[in-house]
Amino acid sequence: MRTYKLTIAYDGSKYQGWQKQGNTSLTIQGMLESVVEKVVGYYVPVNGSGRTDRGVHAKGQTASIVLAGMIDTHEFMCNINEQLPSDIQILQVDLVKNGFHARLGAKGKCYEYWLDLREKPEVFTRKYTYHFPKKLQISEMKKAASFLVGEHDFKAFTDKKDEKSTIRCIYDIKIEEYGSKIKIEYKGNGFMYHMIRIITGTLLEVGDGRRKPEEVCTILESKKRGNAGFLVPARGLFLKEVYYE
Amino acid sequence: MRTYKLTIAYDGSKYQGWQKQGNTSLTIQGMLESVVEKVVGYYVPVNGSGRTDRGVHAKGQTASIVLAGMIDTHEFMCNINEQLPSDIQILQVDLVKNGFHARLGAKGKCYEYWLDLREKPEVFTRKYTYHFPKKLQISEMKKAASFLVGEHDFKAFTDKKDEKSTIRCIYDIKIEEYGSKIKIEYKGNGFMYHMIRIITGTLLEVGDGRRKPEEVCTILESKKRGNAGFLVPARGLFLKEVYYE
Repeated sequence: MRTYKLTIAYDGSKYQGWQKQGNTSLTIQGMLESVVEKVVGYYVPVNGSGRTDRGVHAKGQTASIVLAGMIDTHEFMCNINEQLPSDIQILQVDLVKNGFHARLGAKGKCYEYWLDLREKPEVFTRKYTYHFPKKLQISEMKKAASFLVGEHDFKAFTDKKDEKSTIRCIYDIKIEEYGSKIKIEYKGNGFMYHMIRIITGTLLEVGDGRRKPEEVCTILESKKRGNAGFLVPARGLFLKEVYYE
Repeated sequence: MRTYKLTIAYDGSKYQGWQKQGNTSLTIQGMLESVVEKVVGYYVPVNGSGRTDRGVHAKGQTASIVLAGMIDTHEFMCNINEQLPSDIQILQVDLVKNGFHARLGAKGKCYEYWLDLREKPEVFTRKYTYHFPKKLQISEMKKAASFLVGEHDFKAFTDKKDEKSTIRCIYDIKIEEYGSKIKIEYKGNGFMYHMIRIITGTLLEVGDGRRKPEEVCTILESKKRGNAGFLVPARGLFLKEVYYE
């Protein structure tokens, strides 16, 4: 038995998300498992580092698989990629220690959220940005973001009701301008359901003047989802990297 | 009567090209004319700077229209853009001198051709690059390109049979690497049917070692299409800019 780590990119536009849900919905995990089974000849669970929601993209999702024996990783990757549709792609296959698990072993993650501020969204990136045609006060957004960095109870910033602990640590939030586009990069030890999209919506409400940066602190303290900002759409969100030791 | 110049971007993936062809095919010109008619209330021909073929994209196509009277250009642009599908977009509307014609007045054009050299094409740009997974000798391609710059008879580099004159002037060909992608930028006073795509195919055959750079000169002299390289697909081609005085 050998364990392998897969690094995967996908355009989530037409998928119901990462997680397999029966046989009828189109999911990234479901697609990968069916292709891996075709290539190796037996069913292999593909365990992702975490779910990505419907419509969310990935530039570096990870997953672990356990195979019956040794494989040539490059040949395996090529065989899998040949069978995959053009919107899913294995970027790397690494032999890892037995016992490695992409989700349980993950120490942190990096996500990107992309915004297009133009009057009409740029034609060639329209499927990968959220169109928000407003003037934004970036410095105010950066200030608000700084209050979120560190270990906090992010209960107000998730739509998950039954999370055991809602305490997470955000290592860094970087806001960068690229012409009329903005990238917000989040690094942290873990992110809950909708957490990045709610934080992004809240930062946008600060950026367009609806809220003061300091409100973010009261939202955190309140632990009430209703006090946080709106949920931005999935199309602008990319899982960029998963960190391991 | 007032004449306006439109600058237009489009994702050509699902269109039969710029030029209207009856009422049943999906074309950029047809789409624009139907939306302009809806907005101004009467039929207005939208005269492009030139045709782009099926599947070719544009970051800066131009067209001229003649309207019955003065309009607020910004309001007009917004009204048109609201009606257009998300893969076509007016970037700018300028009032120009009466008599201006986007095709007849054009002094030159700039095109970009994008290649993806990775084993499998990058997921998020797969519709806008030509996947050519080979090692390329860029310096050899640059040398071959240098023989094409200047005024030449490009008869060997077009699929158009009935062109009156096949003499054109290429001002510049720039080959630039962006990670695993390559952009070839062409500037010239005009390009014939398939000319850029045949030149690109020929440069690729130089890059992968099938031809020597000097062969380009014999191809030019031969004036035979059969001697030139293969036709690369439309998906990597963008009309970037049209020059006027």
